[in-house]
Amino acid sequence: MTYQEEISVSTKGFCDVVDITDRVSDIVSDSKIKEGIVVVFSTSSTSAITTIEHEPNLVKDFEELLEKIIPKNKQYHHGATWGDDNGFSHLRASLIGPSLAVPISKGKMTLGTWENVVLCDFDNRSRERTLIVKVVGE
Amino acid sequence: MTYQEEISVSTKGFCDVVDITDRVSDIVSDSKIKEGIVVVFSTSSTSAITTIEHEPNLVKDFEELLEKIIPKNKQYHHGATWGDDNGFSHLRASLIGPSLAVPISKGKMTLGTWENVVLCDFDNRSRERTLIVKVVGE
Amino acid sequence: MTYQEEISVSTKGFCDVVDITDRVSDIVSDSKIKEGIVVVFSTSSTSAITTIEHEPNLVKDFEELLEKIIPKNKQYHHGATWGDDNGFSHLRASLIGPSLAVPISKGKMTLGTWENVVLCDFDNRSRERTLIVKVVGE
Repeated sequence: MTYQEEISVSTKGFCDVVDITDRVSDIVSDSKIKEGIVVVFSTSSTSAITTIEHEPNLVKDFEELLEKIIPKNKQYHHGATWGDDNGFSHLRASLIGPSLAVPISKGKMTLGTWENVVLCDFDNRSRERTLIVKVVGE
Repeated sequence: MTYQEEISVSTKGFCDVVDITDRVSDIVSDSKIKEGIVVVFSTSSTSAITTIEHEPNLVKDFEELLEKIIPKNKQYHHGATWGDDNGFSHLRASLIGPSLAVPISKGKMTLGTWENVVLCDFDNRSRERTLIVKVVGE
Repeated sequence: MTYQEEISVSTKGFCDVVDITDRVSDIVSDSKIKEGIVVVFSTSSTSAITTIEHEPNLVKDFEELLEKIIPKNKQYHHGATWGDDNGFSHLRASLIGPSLAVPISKGKMTLGTWENVVLCDFDNRSRERTLIVKVVGE
């Protein structure tokens, strides 16, 4: 059995880390699938999916980490291609990755107490994002 | 068909990289699933799952890499939230990610010769970790 | 239902980022699976799978990013184990990860417009790589 829903998220860009745990949980419930996996996938090349304890101070640490590794004000070659100055957004997205697979057991995701599923929007402006949530199992 | 087992691992923290390949392989065997995928998922926000050639020198390189990118003795905002001084552990976990999906073919994971599945415990103390191993297929 | 094909890729090493989107799409078509997920998995410990907008300037940015984080000319402990001087290749692969799961809807991967699936070969020489593409669904 498979089941799919989309999630739409309005984001602010520049490392906007949005907690989508409850929305994914609701889709897992809607699916009626009790045992299997759910894949959360971001359909853009400047955003990513990961897990984090979603509390404001740690989110700030995460933003500062990405700014240290991949600073937004550096010149990237990508800017010469489209002139849109979001090379840093693409690099952050490729590093974190667009996809997360979580097991489902007894109808629920097997997340730990402090594990939140998050969309990280790295683009340099606000966006309307679409995520695909696919459930596979029985 | 789906199948699930848990793995318990005692870890030392501070980038403890534990080879769990054989334990995951045994679960894939137990599942009797011949074709499909297995998802290995860490149910904590301060540990992660990836693959590496699990030999001591490379494990040391991996630890030094994470110490360079996300040093343990830096002050993180997260410390102000709970006072537990493990902001670096959370950031390392979010960067590497809690989940790994591996194909199963003829009843075995399709790992390369030097690819080991590892739990990386980044916390700042020893822990008892629980991993969920979910097999989906036929 | 499950379906599997292998992809062989000749790579140049040293952060060779190869667009495999069309080859994975063809396998998804061949599978006749309309709803499910596809897992693309690299069976080597010195290469990885991620998504990126595959245009030459951004690929150059990605290479420079990895060179900054994990330089190829640094001495790594791994060199003392096998003397093959590709510690940087292993570390890059473990950081990016060997596996990508993408949802399939109406017989196609749900990739965004600018999202390409890529094999990143980080080894220090040319290689013949084998990827496993596993489709699970209905």
